[in-house]
Amino acid sequence: MKLLRVGTAGAETPALLDAEGVLRDLSGVVPDIDGALLADDEALARIRAMAGELPVLDPAGLRIGPPLGRIGKIVCIGLNYHDHARETGAEPPAEPVIFFKAADTVVGPNDTVLVPRGSVKTDWEVELAVVIGRTARYVESAEAALGHVAGYAVAHDVSEREFQIERGGTWDKGKNCETFNPLGPWLVTADEVPDPQNLSLKLWVNGELKQNGTTAEQIFPVAEVVRYVSQFMTLYPGDVINTGTPAGVALGAPEPKPFLRAGDVVELEIEGLGRQRQELKGA
Amino acid sequence: MKLLRVGTAGAETPALLDAEGVLRDLSGVVPDIDGALLADDEALARIRAMAGELPVLDPAGLRIGPPLGRIGKIVCIGLNYHDHARETGAEPPAEPVIFFKAADTVVGPNDTVLVPRGSVKTDWEVELAVVIGRTARYVESAEAALGHVAGYAVAHDVSEREFQIERGGTWDKGKNCETFNPLGPWLVTADEVPDPQNLSLKLWVNGELKQNGTTAEQIFPVAEVVRYVSQFMTLYPGDVINTGTPAGVALGAPEPKPFLRAGDVVELEIEGLGRQRQELKGA
Repeated sequence: MKLLRVGTAGAETPALLDAEGVLRDLSGVVPDIDGALLADDEALARIRAMAGELPVLDPAGLRIGPPLGRIGKIVCIGLNYHDHARETGAEPPAEPVIFFKAADTVVGPNDTVLVPRGSVKTDWEVELAVVIGRTARYVESAEAALGHVAGYAVAHDVSEREFQIERGGTWDKGKNCETFNPLGPWLVTADEVPDPQNLSLKLWVNGELKQNGTTAEQIFPVAEVVRYVSQFMTLYPGDVINTGTPAGVALGAPEPKPFLRAGDVVELEIEGLGRQRQELKGA
Repeated sequence: MKLLRVGTAGAETPALLDAEGVLRDLSGVVPDIDGALLADDEALARIRAMAGELPVLDPAGLRIGPPLGRIGKIVCIGLNYHDHARETGAEPPAEPVIFFKAADTVVGPNDTVLVPRGSVKTDWEVELAVVIGRTARYVESAEAALGHVAGYAVAHDVSEREFQIERGGTWDKGKNCETFNPLGPWLVTADEVPDPQNLSLKLWVNGELKQNGTTAEQIFPVAEVVRYVSQFMTLYPGDVINTGTPAGVALGAPEPKPFLRAGDVVELEIEGLGRQRQELKGA
C-alpha cells in the first residue's frame, strides 16, 4: 500500500495511491497518516480492504507533502555504505554511527530546499527511510527487528559539510537546517518491500546522475540498524530512521567539489518508493 | 509566572503556581502548556491577569509532569562551562558544540530515571533549559536573541558516557536513552528571570553535593547560544535548548568514577526554577 499526504504544507490530508496508480482520498477514513495509524493493524487492514471504493482525487496541481505527520524523532545512520565510507576516506565503522535530524526539517518530496545563509558546502544524500510502526525497545535479534517497521520512503538527507565537519561538535550542526529532509512521495508499507537490502537508489543534480547505489552495499542492513538503535533509545511508531547514503556525494568528488547552489535541481529515486524533485533556493 | 503540568504521564493538565505558591488549575483556560501558548502573548497576559481567580488544586499526591507539552526538538550545548570543560580535559570550544536529545526522552521532574541495559557509565548533568516562545531564524544579535525565549526550566541531561564517547559516532548515542531528560517542575517565564547568567545550579547524589555551579561560568551565555543556534537551524516555539552543565559530573571524578546505579537518588535545583528528585531503576 502506498500512503501519502496531499495539500497545503502543514494542512495535508491523508490519501493513498491504489494498485492501479489512482490517487484516492483517505480523509473520511483516518485523521492522518501518523504513528497512531501505523500502530493500528485493524485500521490499516480496513483501509486496504476499501481502497478501491475510496473517492478519487485529481492529482493535477496537488502538492504532495511528507507522507507522515507528527513525526517523532529522525535517527540517522552515518557512513552506512561501503562505497560511501570509501569515498569520504573514512574507515567502515565498527558499529552504526548515529546522529539526529529534527522532525521540523521535513518537507514534501518536491518542495524547495533552502541553501543556508553563508553555506558553501550544501550536499545531497539519497537515503532509504525506515518508518517505525511498533515500539522497538531492546529488540533481541535482527530477525525480530523488521516486525517493528511499518514501511519505507525516500529521504533526502541534505547536509552542510562545513557546518557538519568544520564547525566543532557533532554532525547535527550540519544536518538540521530548515527544509533539509525532503521525505516521500509515499510511505510504502513493508509488505510491498520484500527485501529492503535489494533496492537501487539514484540521485541526479541538474539531470546528471551523481549517486547510483544499492542497499545491498549497506554495512549494517535495515534489520540490524533497528535492532542496534533500540539498544540505545526506544523507537516509537512515527519515528523515522534514515539509513545512510551510497557513494556519489559532492564531498566525495575531486576538487572543486560540486556543492549545491540556488537554482540547482536535485532529483532522487528509490526502486518502488517513488521519486523526488527539489529546486534549491537561498534561505 | 510559573507554569506546570500535573497528572498522569501523557495526560497532564496545565496549571500554574501563583505568587503565593498556590497551585491553580489552568485546564479551563488553555488546552496545554506548549509552543502555541508560549507564542501567544495575549493568552499569556490573560492567564497572568486571572491567576488569583483560578480554581485551587490540592497538590497532595499529584504527579508533576514536564512543564511543556508537544516539545519540538531539544538542542543541547556541550562543554559550555569553563569548569566542566576543564574537568573533562577538553579545550574550551571555539564555538558552541551542538548535539540533540529527542523529545521522547522527557519525563517529569520526579519521575524514575532508567539506567539503560548494559550501562556502567550513567552520569548526571544539571542544566538550565531555555524554552523558545518565538521563532528564531538567523537572529542577528545576542541582544535580540533573548526576545525569542519564553522561559526557563531545570533540565537533567542524563548521559551514558560509554554510549556517548566509546561506541563510535556522535554524542547522541549516549544522550537519548528513555527517561534521560527530566524537565521541570516549572516553566518560569522570562520576565521572572532577569539575569539568566547569574543562577546557581546544584545537584546531589544520595544527598551528597556533586555539582555546585553558576551560569556565570557559561562559555557561551544564553543569548549567544540562541543567536548561534539560529544560524544553523530554525528554533520554533516549544523547542528547548539545554545549555550545558557545570563541573562535578561522574566523568570528571577520579577513578573509580561514581557512575549512577539502580537505587541511587539524584536531586537537582536551579535558583528560582525549582527542584527535581529522581530515583534510578534498571531498564
